[in-house]
Amino acid sequence: MIAAEKKIRKWETVPFTRVEILDHFWRPRLETVHDVTLAVCLDHCEETGRIANFSKAAGRMNGAFKGMYYDDSDVYKVIEGAAYTLMLRRDAELESRVDGIIDEICAAQEADGYLCTYYTLVAPDQKWTDMEKHEMYNGGHLIEAAVAYWEATGKRQLLDTACRMADHYIRHFGPGKRHWVEGHPEIELALMKLHAATDDDRYLDLAIWLLEERGHGLGRGEIWEKPEWGAAYCQDDVPVREIEKVTGHAVRAMYLYTAMADAARLSGEAAYLGALHRVWAHTTKRNLYLTGGIGSSADNEGFTQDYDLPNESAYCETCAAIGMAFWNHRMNLLFGEGEYADLVETEWYNGALAGISLSGDRFFYVNPLASKGDHHRVEWFHTSCCPTNLVRFLPSVGQYVYAKTEDGLAINQYIAGKAELETGGGQKVSVTQATNYPWDGCINLGVEPSKTSAFTLRLRVPGWCRSYRLFVGGEAVSLSPERGYLEVNRTWRPGDQVRLELDMPVEVVRAHPEVKANEGRIALRRGPIIYALEQVDNRDLSYDEFSLSAYTAVRVHHDKELLGGVILLEAARADSGQTPYRFVPYYAWDNREAGFMQVWIKERPDQRGCDR
Amino acid sequence: MIAAEKKIRKWETVPFTRVEILDHFWRPRLETVHDVTLAVCLDHCEETGRIANFSKAAGRMNGAFKGMYYDDSDVYKVIEGAAYTLMLRRDAELESRVDGIIDEICAAQEADGYLCTYYTLVAPDQKWTDMEKHEMYNGGHLIEAAVAYWEATGKRQLLDTACRMADHYIRHFGPGKRHWVEGHPEIELALMKLHAATDDDRYLDLAIWLLEERGHGLGRGEIWEKPEWGAAYCQDDVPVREIEKVTGHAVRAMYLYTAMADAARLSGEAAYLGALHRVWAHTTKRNLYLTGGIGSSADNEGFTQDYDLPNESAYCETCAAIGMAFWNHRMNLLFGEGEYADLVETEWYNGALAGISLSGDRFFYVNPLASKGDHHRVEWFHTSCCPTNLVRFLPSVGQYVYAKTEDGLAINQYIAGKAELETGGGQKVSVTQATNYPWDGCINLGVEPSKTSAFTLRLRVPGWCRSYRLFVGGEAVSLSPERGYLEVNRTWRPGDQVRLELDMPVEVVRAHPEVKANEGRIALRRGPIIYALEQVDNRDLSYDEFSLSAYTAVRVHHDKELLGGVILLEAARADSGQTPYRFVPYYAWDNREAGFMQVWIKERPDQRGCDR
Repeated sequence: MIAAEKKIRKWETVPFTRVEILDHFWRPRLETVHDVTLAVCLDHCEETGRIANFSKAAGRMNGAFKGMYYDDSDVYKVIEGAAYTLMLRRDAELESRVDGIIDEICAAQEADGYLCTYYTLVAPDQKWTDMEKHEMYNGGHLIEAAVAYWEATGKRQLLDTACRMADHYIRHFGPGKRHWVEGHPEIELALMKLHAATDDDRYLDLAIWLLEERGHGLGRGEIWEKPEWGAAYCQDDVPVREIEKVTGHAVRAMYLYTAMADAARLSGEAAYLGALHRVWAHTTKRNLYLTGGIGSSADNEGFTQDYDLPNESAYCETCAAIGMAFWNHRMNLLFGEGEYADLVETEWYNGALAGISLSGDRFFYVNPLASKGDHHRVEWFHTSCCPTNLVRFLPSVGQYVYAKTEDGLAINQYIAGKAELETGGGQKVSVTQATNYPWDGCINLGVEPSKTSAFTLRLRVPGWCRSYRLFVGGEAVSLSPERGYLEVNRTWRPGDQVRLELDMPVEVVRAHPEVKANEGRIALRRGPIIYALEQVDNRDLSYDEFSLSAYTAVRVHHDKELLGGVILLEAARADSGQTPYRFVPYYAWDNREAGFMQVWIKERPDQRGCDR
Repeated sequence: MIAAEKKIRKWETVPFTRVEILDHFWRPRLETVHDVTLAVCLDHCEETGRIANFSKAAGRMNGAFKGMYYDDSDVYKVIEGAAYTLMLRRDAELESRVDGIIDEICAAQEADGYLCTYYTLVAPDQKWTDMEKHEMYNGGHLIEAAVAYWEATGKRQLLDTACRMADHYIRHFGPGKRHWVEGHPEIELALMKLHAATDDDRYLDLAIWLLEERGHGLGRGEIWEKPEWGAAYCQDDVPVREIEKVTGHAVRAMYLYTAMADAARLSGEAAYLGALHRVWAHTTKRNLYLTGGIGSSADNEGFTQDYDLPNESAYCETCAAIGMAFWNHRMNLLFGEGEYADLVETEWYNGALAGISLSGDRFFYVNPLASKGDHHRVEWFHTSCCPTNLVRFLPSVGQYVYAKTEDGLAINQYIAGKAELETGGGQKVSVTQATNYPWDGCINLGVEPSKTSAFTLRLRVPGWCRSYRLFVGGEAVSLSPERGYLEVNRTWRPGDQVRLELDMPVEVVRAHPEVKANEGRIALRRGPIIYALEQVDNRDLSYDEFSLSAYTAVRVHHDKELLGGVILLEAARADSGQTPYRFVPYYAWDNREAGFMQVWIKERPDQRGCDR
């Protein structure tokens, strides 16, 4: 589709506070985030001095700054995660612990609103000299945490601090004031959130101004002088309106495009729409792994050449997968198009979810699609952005589920639970979902408008789905997807029932022919889940011995115990009589014994060769 | 797989008399064959003088021979069909009508056993001079009818006549006697049946001798002198042991290979196995339409060049599709391999089934995969082999369902009903199938051995199936297909239950890249059913305007009224808001208004382009 033809829709996100998650897949994971991951991340933030840095900056504790200049952000991200988690289940102990940390943070703010403990403690005279030192990146995460915590608890303390900090930015930066190209985008999307929370247009203006600063040679700092990276690493190589291709550091790119999509939704600015279309196509058609991973190179934590998607050396930072979800969620709201929600789903069940162990206390920074056995999750990282991104991403899944549309509601993700929604026309509608997704494609919806009223309910048909059935009130309905959705436009009555059946067979997937790494290889997918083969399930073969026919009929088995309950796939080997290969969901790998793993398996020639 | 590695298994067919068909898909069709098709074919045989030719040859009626020299065969084929149909429901009126015809046939046999009304009436002095004049072809069909009628009714009159005729052949042909290359193979497979029915090895010896006569320059007759056809048209170009490629007239080729497979099963002769492998691969990998149709050219009613598979001008004679089922059934018995049963299934639901109208009284001789609107079923043909092949093929589906294996039983086709079977080990087992196949992939089996006993039950996993679940006694079972079958080897007890769930999504199919006719085209398949788009469902577009994205999510709708009850597919068009394309099963086309039809639809470019 050509950019110019793509009408924008300006859907609205549904606050996570309105969506109750009762899902068999997600609810236990969110409980684990609450019970384990949050505590673990808070502990690590304490043990590594990240929280103490605030107390020190506040003058409440003696000692030097510890860690890296961007470490403040981890504390903010954990607070943001705590906010979402408190919506799952109110927890006085957790809230009190977070309130204590917030108190330290607020005390660390300087009188003029400045807040970045590294500069306060280490180099107060060097503030705003190196644009890549994450001052506003930290600030952005403070804003996100503050907005979430305010939404979840109603407490304004951190939000007030965030506003004072943003006001400080406004005093120093903007048209006619100092230039700034924040080396790690984040502040822009955060200011969009602050604008939404406060309705203060100054924050929106600053966000857009910061976007527009890029690509004009204004970036200053160490990173800009590294010839091998240059401005592209920070997405400062071209003005945002002229972006053609995804470049540089993957997480930075995602956060930038997220803010651009937010800006475009508010402004409708054609140049932004064009840039977003181009860079989305370039990212997803040439630089995206099957798992939703992006950024193939460890060197720049980012992009290289088109179709350069090696498996074993894939970088695929967990944060970048999460960033893809952020960006695609905004693209979905902007264009009302299902294919963006497809990618949110891909990250939900693959690229992002693989970043955390089933136990909730071990993490991947790097997510290869093949490993010879030496890649394992660890408890924490020196630069620990990934654990603290997971701790805020996972409990926020509720906000991706629905959207308020101009003429009704859209259901973007299938997840059991209940939501209190409002249509674009102002009609209140309670929606329940009952489903065993992602293991089963049947979704039963209860649609309960507060009074009988006409509106359009959009149901996403995932991109992986080739066939489906739709029933409203038990009657089969003839609808084809429009822009990725079945649009059920009718007069809804309390008690209305919808049933969507998405066929969910195992599919053999082939990579784009330009992806040399996957030449002669195939992968298995079932619904949104990408599968991987692990050594622990396939002990008698060595890493290079696996090969799979594309015409293999695969056994599907729901093992309710293994790996927290998964659908396993079993595929016959070439030699009959041998135990079949066993595949587990990619997200669940490396949760048992150490060993090798492969997503793309060598294709075994099969005389069938083609359909006909 | 290389021929030499393919162990033969020598499974045994299960007589149609043991298989009761209670299937929602097949039972109504078989009732229609009984109520309509049989009567219609008998009437046409009467009206066209085909039956009278026998009375005339018997001297019971005056008048000249009418029709073509091969017309006797139609009468025999209808009798064969009547035999199968009488197993469905005993019908005194039908049986009496058939008995009357049989009486005329037997009376037409000459004193020495010779039976071919054309030569008796028209050219008694020309017998056995032109090998392509179908004398033994007619004889073969007499034998098939006689064996079937004897099996169904126990009446021997026609079987005795058939034996007398075969004995006549033996007296005249064979080692040290006259040479003979029957221009239209059929006698060979028929003699195999006569051998099985009578246990008289002379019939087997004659069958093998007739096979071996081919390819040595012994063919004599008009057809051998036509330079554009030559011996290849009659499969007389190479000795059967040296066959490399499928050639000539498609039906003749199929009937020949059917007999070769029967011979190989009895003899294990390696040269036959090699020839069968080669010609099967050549037929199915390079010369087979998606519908199971073969023989692309009307000129020779047969094969041309590899991958020459035009859609509109496809010949795809109904008899050739039926012949494919004959041959592949024998290949399945010979090798115990599921892929052959896959092709029987393909013909059941597509290539062969399309040959008859839902009403049971109109027929296709030619089965193109696209039509601009000028191709329609008719009531009868001058050469009417196809209606009379359908009338015997359809009511015989029961014999394709099961096989007796060396170590138990194989279930080759899923069709609701009940069968009284016997394992290779001699254990009697009653098997019930409950299923909505081909509309649904769930099959519930009841396995009732007369006493507790160990044997292997093989369940075919169709080639179209990519994923499945198997439960025995409610427990999930980990089995992968071996040579196309799930082999459930256990001790079976009366009352055992098996449930097989075959995922049956809509699939987008592409042709082999060498098939130029389908370059840039895709087709839709769901389970064993190939779909077609007809004008009556898609009125507002012209023939050339259709295009379909391979990434379309297709709505699946079970319409219980339309076309006798079918699963319809609805696929969105490029422009949103338009009514979707509607597809019906290929077999059901041309049962409503006259109009165009397409199986292979132009592919609409889709930005998704590939999986990743």
